[in-house]
Amino acid sequence: MESWKILEGGLDNVSGFSSYGINCGIKKEKNDLAAILSDTPATAAGVFTSNRFSAAPVLVTREHLLKERKLQLVVANSGVANACTGERGIEDARKMADFAASCFKVDSHLVAVASTGVIGEFLPLPKIEKGIEELSRILPVKKSSREAVKAIMTTDTFPKERALSFSWKGKTVHLGGIAKGSGMIKPNLATMLSFIVTDLGIDAGTLNQVLKEVVDESFNRVTVDGDTSTNDMVLILANGKSGVNTQEKDEVFPLFREALLWLAQELSRDLARDGEGATKFVEIIVQGAKNKEEARRGAFTVAESPLVKTALFGEDPNWGRIMAALGRSGIEIDPHKVNLEINGVTLVEGGMKAKGVGREQGQEAMKKKELRIIVDLGIGEGEFGVWTCDLSLDYVRINSHYS
Amino acid sequence: MESWKILEGGLDNVSGFSSYGINCGIKKEKNDLAAILSDTPATAAGVFTSNRFSAAPVLVTREHLLKERKLQLVVANSGVANACTGERGIEDARKMADFAASCFKVDSHLVAVASTGVIGEFLPLPKIEKGIEELSRILPVKKSSREAVKAIMTTDTFPKERALSFSWKGKTVHLGGIAKGSGMIKPNLATMLSFIVTDLGIDAGTLNQVLKEVVDESFNRVTVDGDTSTNDMVLILANGKSGVNTQEKDEVFPLFREALLWLAQELSRDLARDGEGATKFVEIIVQGAKNKEEARRGAFTVAESPLVKTALFGEDPNWGRIMAALGRSGIEIDPHKVNLEINGVTLVEGGMKAKGVGREQGQEAMKKKELRIIVDLGIGEGEFGVWTCDLSLDYVRINSHYS
Repeated sequence: MESWKILEGGLDNVSGFSSYGINCGIKKEKNDLAAILSDTPATAAGVFTSNRFSAAPVLVTREHLLKERKLQLVVANSGVANACTGERGIEDARKMADFAASCFKVDSHLVAVASTGVIGEFLPLPKIEKGIEELSRILPVKKSSREAVKAIMTTDTFPKERALSFSWKGKTVHLGGIAKGSGMIKPNLATMLSFIVTDLGIDAGTLNQVLKEVVDESFNRVTVDGDTSTNDMVLILANGKSGVNTQEKDEVFPLFREALLWLAQELSRDLARDGEGATKFVEIIVQGAKNKEEARRGAFTVAESPLVKTALFGEDPNWGRIMAALGRSGIEIDPHKVNLEINGVTLVEGGMKAKGVGREQGQEAMKKKELRIIVDLGIGEGEFGVWTCDLSLDYVRINSHYS
Repeated sequence: MESWKILEGGLDNVSGFSSYGINCGIKKEKNDLAAILSDTPATAAGVFTSNRFSAAPVLVTREHLLKERKLQLVVANSGVANACTGERGIEDARKMADFAASCFKVDSHLVAVASTGVIGEFLPLPKIEKGIEELSRILPVKKSSREAVKAIMTTDTFPKERALSFSWKGKTVHLGGIAKGSGMIKPNLATMLSFIVTDLGIDAGTLNQVLKEVVDESFNRVTVDGDTSTNDMVLILANGKSGVNTQEKDEVFPLFREALLWLAQELSRDLARDGEGATKFVEIIVQGAKNKEEARRGAFTVAESPLVKTALFGEDPNWGRIMAALGRSGIEIDPHKVNLEINGVTLVEGGMKAKGVGREQGQEAMKKKELRIIVDLGIGEGEFGVWTCDLSLDYVRINSHYS
C-alpha cells in the first residue's frame, strides 16, 4: 500500500481528537490522570478483561458503551485500580464519569473511565475531580498524546504510542493509539490499557467486529507472566472527521483493517518488549500442530514456562525445557517429528539434538535482543505465534515490592 | 494410632532393603548414582510423568514393571536425564538395566532405571556401568539411604528422607522413602523422583491402586513453577519381610494406607519447602468452591501465578494479586462472597478489604516462614489445598544458568 504512512507520535495525529495528561496527586510527581476528547460523539467499541473480578471502571464503561455505542471522552487514572472495591467502587467510578461529563459538557454515557494500579484501594475522588477540572480547561486548546500516555504508565519503562495514515480517493484517514503494560500481561488482556482513535467514519457493528478480530491477532498474543488483570480494556473511537466512511463490504474497509492490525500489533509487541524486567523480546511460533487451537496452547505453555523464560534470560540454549513445556501442554505430539530453531539455528531435529550443532551455536543464537523460536511439530497445519519476554532478576525485584 | 512411630532416616529402616549412592563421574565430586536393592523380588507399582516427551528410563521402567508387577532393584543417576534422546536413548536405558541385572544377578525386568538432569544428552554409559559394578560390590553388605538420596539430588538443597513404622498383632511394618525435587515440580509429577519401600506384603493390584490414590493427595498437590518434567516417577516396592500381609479388605490395610499417605505427604511438603530458591513454604487452600475440581483449578492458578509468588517473596500483603489470579482461573466466583485469610489474619471480606485490618497486620502475617492462605469462595462445598513456595531472586539465578 503506497499511500500508507507511519507517523511519529500517537493520538495527536488524528483529526478532531485531543488528549493530555497531568499529575493530580495520586502519585507523587508523575502523571496519573489522562483525558482523551473527541470534538463530537464518536462511534466506539471496546474489548474488556475476562477476569471474574472485573474492576468497577470496566463495568461502568461497558455499561456506558452499550447504551449508544458512542463515546466522546475517555478519562483514565493510574496508581489505584478501583478493583475489589464492591458497591462503593462502582459508585466512585460513576461519580468520576459524571463529574467528567459535567466538566467537559458531554453526556455521562459518552464518558469511558479506566483505572490501573493497586487492587483493593478506593479512588481518591477529590484529587481526581480536581484533576478532571484542570484537564477540562486544558483540552481541546492544548494537546499532547505523550503526556496522556505517561499518565497511564505504571511499571512501564517507556511510553507506547503508534500512529499511521492512509489515503483514499484524495482524503487521508489517520489512526493513533496508546497503550500501557507491563506485568500481568496475558491474553484476554491484563493490566493492559489501550486507547485507539481514528478519524474514519464507520458503523458501530463493523467497528466492534473488526476490533475483536484485531485484538485476537495482537493484544491476545502477548503474555508476560500468564496473569490477567481485573482492569484491562481496549477502546477504539471513530469520529468520521476524515470524510471517509466505510462499511464492512466497502473497498476501503480492508485498508482500515490492515492499518488497525498494524497499529495494534506494534503496540502489542511494545508491551512484550517492555514486560516487567524484560531483557529480551521473544516470539514463539508453534507450527505443524494438529490445528490452530493446539498450536496456540503449545505456544502459550512454552511462553509462560518459568523454566523456559529464565533460560532465555540466561542465554542458555537449554532447548530441553521448551520440549518439556510442550510435552506437558496436553497437545498432540509425535516426539520423533519435532524440529526446533532459534533465530534460524536448528537445535532439534526429529525430537533429538540436531547433528553437527554444538552448544556454542546455540549460545550464539541466544545472544540477540530479539529471539524468534520456531517449533515445528510436523503433524498438521496448525500455527500460532505469541510474543513474550524473558523472566529476569528484575522481574522478581519489581514484583516482590510493588503495593 | 498409638503403635505408629516416626523414625529417623529413610530406606535403611525397612527390612530386606539396602541402598547406597556413589560418584561415578557424571558430576565432578557429588554422588550421581544410586541403587536400591531388595533381598528378594518385591511387589511393585509406579506412577509416571504425563509429559509427552517421556524420557527413555520412564518408558523402559514402565515396560519392566508391567511384565510381572515386581521389582528387585532400582538404579538411578543424576546429571543426565536421557530425555529427548530417541531410539539410542531407549537402547541406553535398556543397557543400563541389563548391565545392572547381570551385576546384581537379578532378572532384567526386575530392574527399574531412573535418570534426572539435563535433557537432550546421551547417558555416559561407561561411567554408569563402572559405577553399577562398584555398587554391586557394596550392596547389600553396606547400606546408606542418605548416600542414595544424595545421588539423585540436582538443585535440591537438602536430602529428603522419611520413615515410619506401625505394629500389627505383635509384628512391625516399616515404610521408608526418599525423594528429590526441586524445580519443574508440578502435579502429574516433574523432575521429581521418589522411591518408597516397605516390608509389608501386599498384592500388586491393591498396591497399584493405593499408590495412585496417595500420589493424588500428596505429590500431585505440589507445584513449584508449573513445569512438569519428562523423567518423573514414584516407585514403591513391597517385599513382605515384616510377616504382615494385607489385601484391600483386611483390617490392617487402612493403617498401611494412612502410613503411606503420611510418608508421601511429608516428602511432598519437603519438595515444596525446597523449591528452587524458595524462602517460604506456602499452603494455598481454596474452599467453598462449586466443587473439588474448581477448588483445585483455583488453588493451582493462585499457586502458579508469578505475581502472587513474587509478592510472597517480598512479604507484600498484595491480596489483589490472589484475587486477580482466582478471577482469571475460569472457576465460578461471586466477587461479593469471597473471604481471604493469611495465617489466621482476615484480609478480605465479601470481596473487599476487610474492615479494621491495616497493611501492618497483613505484613506481620506474611513474615512467617510458613504461610497458610485460605480463600473461601462461599458458594459450595468444594475444597482443595496445594503446597508451593515463593518465587525469589535465587529461582531466577539458579535457572538462568543451569545446563
